[in-house]
Amino acid sequence: MKEQLIIKMVLDAWHQYQKRTDDLFRQFSDEDLLKQIAPGKNTGKYLLGHLTAVHDRMLPLLGLGQALYPTLHDDFETRGDGGQVKNYSTSDLRRYWTEVNTTLGNAMATLTFEQWFERHTAISADDFSREPHRNRLNVIINRTNHIAWHYGQLLLIRNKES
Amino acid sequence: MKEQLIIKMVLDAWHQYQKRTDDLFRQFSDEDLLKQIAPGKNTGKYLLGHLTAVHDRMLPLLGLGQALYPTLHDDFETRGDGGQVKNYSTSDLRRYWTEVNTTLGNAMATLTFEQWFERHTAISADDFSREPHRNRLNVIINRTNHIAWHYGQLLLIRNKES
Repeated sequence: MKEQLIIKMVLDAWHQYQKRTDDLFRQFSDEDLLKQIAPGKNTGKYLLGHLTAVHDRMLPLLGLGQALYPTLHDDFETRGDGGQVKNYSTSDLRRYWTEVNTTLGNAMATLTFEQWFERHTAISADDFSREPHRNRLNVIINRTNHIAWHYGQLLLIRNKES
Repeated sequence: MKEQLIIKMVLDAWHQYQKRTDDLFRQFSDEDLLKQIAPGKNTGKYLLGHLTAVHDRMLPLLGLGQALYPTLHDDFETRGDGGQVKNYSTSDLRRYWTEVNTTLGNAMATLTFEQWFERHTAISADDFSREPHRNRLNVIINRTNHIAWHYGQLLLIRNKES
């Protein structure tokens, strides 16, 4: 009983921030997304690519499949805004964002309670035996905080004059 | 076993963002805290008061005592930046922040596994019987996302010229 409750609590928070952020991206025009969250800082477009890249890599991290758009990793995680971002159209990034989140959500929905407590793929079996909290569910807790972090930044674009 | 793990995972994430944000506030001079996270948006000082107010109210929400600084609620939650903020000195706000988090952390450390799954004080017993996920632990999940949200914004003050 409590076990199911835990999964629900963690996934509810994930879906809540996922939805809030998705709603915000939909409210923003392509022009809005070219604005920086603060002078000299990332654009909304960069953060759209960044969140897509991080969520895409959750597929292999959770052992749920391969990343759909592996080049995003270099272009929106390793490198900052500027570099390769101009090679992506905003409409493509919007499409990747939706596709990655749908694929990830469908794959996550197949996991059983026991599977949520299995190790993720970035930790060895040895290390996991000593640190059993480094499981799939913990990835969701951490990635929810990651969305919330950038959601707070994206809000700054709303109602921005220029 | 898994039950203890769950508490650890949720509290680890809370403490991680609590520490990251605390480290950031300590790096910032009082002058840094007067800067806005983006033009026309909240100052670091306001967010220091805001996070303190929200954490202070977690004491009654979790049934762990009364808020230490109840006036912060109106001044840093109900009202935006501007209004009453000038009546607080930054050094007082820094002190409240540390005191509230220490008090809250000590009180949280006394809770047992079962107590984490009891209802928080903002939900009635009736509603809780239908929505058992609205427990104390869920408050921590949500408040961790709240810190992460503002942490992402506070980072924008770092290395800001003016």
